[in-house]
Amino acid sequence: MKIWIRNGYVISMDEKKEIITQEDIVIENDIILFIGKNYKGSYDKIIDAKDRYVLPGLINCHTHLGMSIFKGTNDNYPLDKWLKEYIWPIEDQLTDEDMYDTTLLSIIEMIKTGTTCFNDMYYNWKGSMKAFSETGIRGVYGRCLIGEKEEWDKREKDFEELYQSNKNDLIKLSIGIHSLYTTNIDSLIKGEHLATKYHLPIHIHLSENKEEVKTIKNRYQMEPIQVLEKYGLLKHKMVIAHGTFLSKKEINLIKGKDISICTNPISNLNLGCGISDISSYRKEGINVCLGTDGVGSGNTLNLFYHMSMVDNLQKGIYQDPTIMSSYEVLKMATINGAKALGLENFIGSLEVGKNADIIILDIDEIDKCTTTNPIIQIVHNGWNNYVDTTIVNGKIVMEKKELKMNIDIHKLQNKMKEIQERLK
Amino acid sequence: MKIWIRNGYVISMDEKKEIITQEDIVIENDIILFIGKNYKGSYDKIIDAKDRYVLPGLINCHTHLGMSIFKGTNDNYPLDKWLKEYIWPIEDQLTDEDMYDTTLLSIIEMIKTGTTCFNDMYYNWKGSMKAFSETGIRGVYGRCLIGEKEEWDKREKDFEELYQSNKNDLIKLSIGIHSLYTTNIDSLIKGEHLATKYHLPIHIHLSENKEEVKTIKNRYQMEPIQVLEKYGLLKHKMVIAHGTFLSKKEINLIKGKDISICTNPISNLNLGCGISDISSYRKEGINVCLGTDGVGSGNTLNLFYHMSMVDNLQKGIYQDPTIMSSYEVLKMATINGAKALGLENFIGSLEVGKNADIIILDIDEIDKCTTTNPIIQIVHNGWNNYVDTTIVNGKIVMEKKELKMNIDIHKLQNKMKEIQERLK
Repeated sequence: MKIWIRNGYVISMDEKKEIITQEDIVIENDIILFIGKNYKGSYDKIIDAKDRYVLPGLINCHTHLGMSIFKGTNDNYPLDKWLKEYIWPIEDQLTDEDMYDTTLLSIIEMIKTGTTCFNDMYYNWKGSMKAFSETGIRGVYGRCLIGEKEEWDKREKDFEELYQSNKNDLIKLSIGIHSLYTTNIDSLIKGEHLATKYHLPIHIHLSENKEEVKTIKNRYQMEPIQVLEKYGLLKHKMVIAHGTFLSKKEINLIKGKDISICTNPISNLNLGCGISDISSYRKEGINVCLGTDGVGSGNTLNLFYHMSMVDNLQKGIYQDPTIMSSYEVLKMATINGAKALGLENFIGSLEVGKNADIIILDIDEIDKCTTTNPIIQIVHNGWNNYVDTTIVNGKIVMEKKELKMNIDIHKLQNKMKEIQERLK
Repeated sequence: MKIWIRNGYVISMDEKKEIITQEDIVIENDIILFIGKNYKGSYDKIIDAKDRYVLPGLINCHTHLGMSIFKGTNDNYPLDKWLKEYIWPIEDQLTDEDMYDTTLLSIIEMIKTGTTCFNDMYYNWKGSMKAFSETGIRGVYGRCLIGEKEEWDKREKDFEELYQSNKNDLIKLSIGIHSLYTTNIDSLIKGEHLATKYHLPIHIHLSENKEEVKTIKNRYQMEPIQVLEKYGLLKHKMVIAHGTFLSKKEINLIKGKDISICTNPISNLNLGCGISDISSYRKEGINVCLGTDGVGSGNTLNLFYHMSMVDNLQKGIYQDPTIMSSYEVLKMATINGAKALGLENFIGSLEVGKNADIIILDIDEIDKCTTTNPIIQIVHNGWNNYVDTTIVNGKIVMEKKELKMNIDIHKLQNKMKEIQERLK
């Protein structure tokens, strides 16, 4: 199958090129075969991209896809109380089938809003893995490892079952260690051993709010990153979710290592965690990528919404509009995300030979009246339903805003209502 | 004309009622005639609102509608530099006809996103007033008064021409004093006299960023609000746009007076002004309402987007998710806005006898799967194209997402391009 995306404005995120070029892109099966002017070869399908913008699919580097059912539930809860009193009791009762439905809903939301790759950490992987396979989405999945002793061991065993059974080429696995505050040192060491044994990256929540940092300091007389260092975790490839309050000392410890920080600006605000000073991390050369967190706190999986805010927030807290730029933010949601997940040779930019994870944006008719700088417009207004076409690994999963998969939204609405009724 | 809005979930913002009720609303001409169960009377048109949410139209208390042409133009400019080097030189060249087109575009964006009333401050009122009349939108308009001596006097004369000519019942006027930093004391006194002479409220930019506060303190050895007090401005009804950095002393000076603060959270971030501590103002009983500012800095006139952020930002800076709630934010964008504009007896809540400014929301099919708390969902995800129907003063201006006005968007796109080409 050869798809010719004709004559779009290509924002390739390829640093060797101009930021915006007007070119053709040709996909053969799952691979980008050609990018250039005036394609003359054969094709099976043509997509006219005139006056539209062609970008790499967005990458959401921290989320919990099974949490779609918790969207719009948190208004006034602090993180700790929200998790303990609201989320965890309900999560415990979600079945594999529930997880299939909630994950499916999240995948639809991602595809509609231009995200083609995720970094998920959650439970009940059977339901999630089924949804991943059926929809053909790309991602990294970490079965959440949490707790101590038997509790941890049970989950570790469950992870191993997942490892043995995963045959989906588009889904890589990670070692999803929930956090320092929900495990002990024994568990942490076990997590590190797992990462070594399976040669997998680590995905961990860390320093999400000041209370958590205080807890860890009190417990270990060390800063959170120092704990990771002491037990050998920093030698692994890692995505640190949040890292909202890392000290200079901590940044120095991860500097130069294969460790990325995934900031989740909306969730951090909504849960009263605060605003992460990612500009200082970026100055030190740390790879900073972008996540939505679960929709219970992050409101939406629409990464455009999070892009606009991460830019605005840095400008706001520094009281300096030059501290960030829209293009830097777009990098966070594309190529930086790919690097964080070890997928930079495959996705994150549009280059010949890479996998075809591509989105085509059609700027809203109102915004089109005034688009002078497409990068600013896309980063700050792209949440406004710009995504027209989504392609994952060469497969068109949405075209002209129509999902190309056999999903009955009304059936899904009823199923979600049934879950909510059952668990409330 | 009698319109029956049948069986919707009504979020009336009427403090005497439950937050959400399932009721009928009947409009007769421009007035809400009936709110209650099982309407049995006559009607000319019926709108089925089953499973949809019926709210008062949103009120944008600080904007510059003629600035639509500047959407997506500011990425890295500080406020001062942006205004002086980019905005003002172009603004100066906009003709009345240009202003008609740019204002029209803003009105379309407002109607599509559920805003039925605005508080505008801008130049070239002839074009704007024409767009207001043609579309039937409601609002308050302040011809921007700026500068010193002859410059001010020329604008004051222009305001008086506007005052004499305004026959539009839906458009009230204000005395739009640009700011302390762009006028001198003589001008300020003239502005105060105008407010007295015409018995009109004042609309002023104040304390938008720290640099401005410093400038005023250096110039007058007083805080900005003290300057307003000294020259008699605080005895007038007033909307202070921004008020990002008001001291306790300043808050005490406006406390108990007919003065509202209109916060513009996105613009304040985007221009590197900072985050306003509106929670402390609210604690003192100040009426705080919500604005988008012009789209050059505020990105969008979609007030839902600004609502979600003002809530999140307060939670974030206080590191306390209980400092705000979605319902309080909804008040800011409805009834608080009406109070700020002196229109609380006419709009801002759905009550019998008030004017029929009404929006009907249809929650997105994805979000509908998981709506457990409609208020949170609407405030935090309503930006996602929820607005289905918009009614201004009893007139349906959008129904089922279709504009009910004779506007050719493609023609408007071409006109905006022509303006951009001419002025660049």
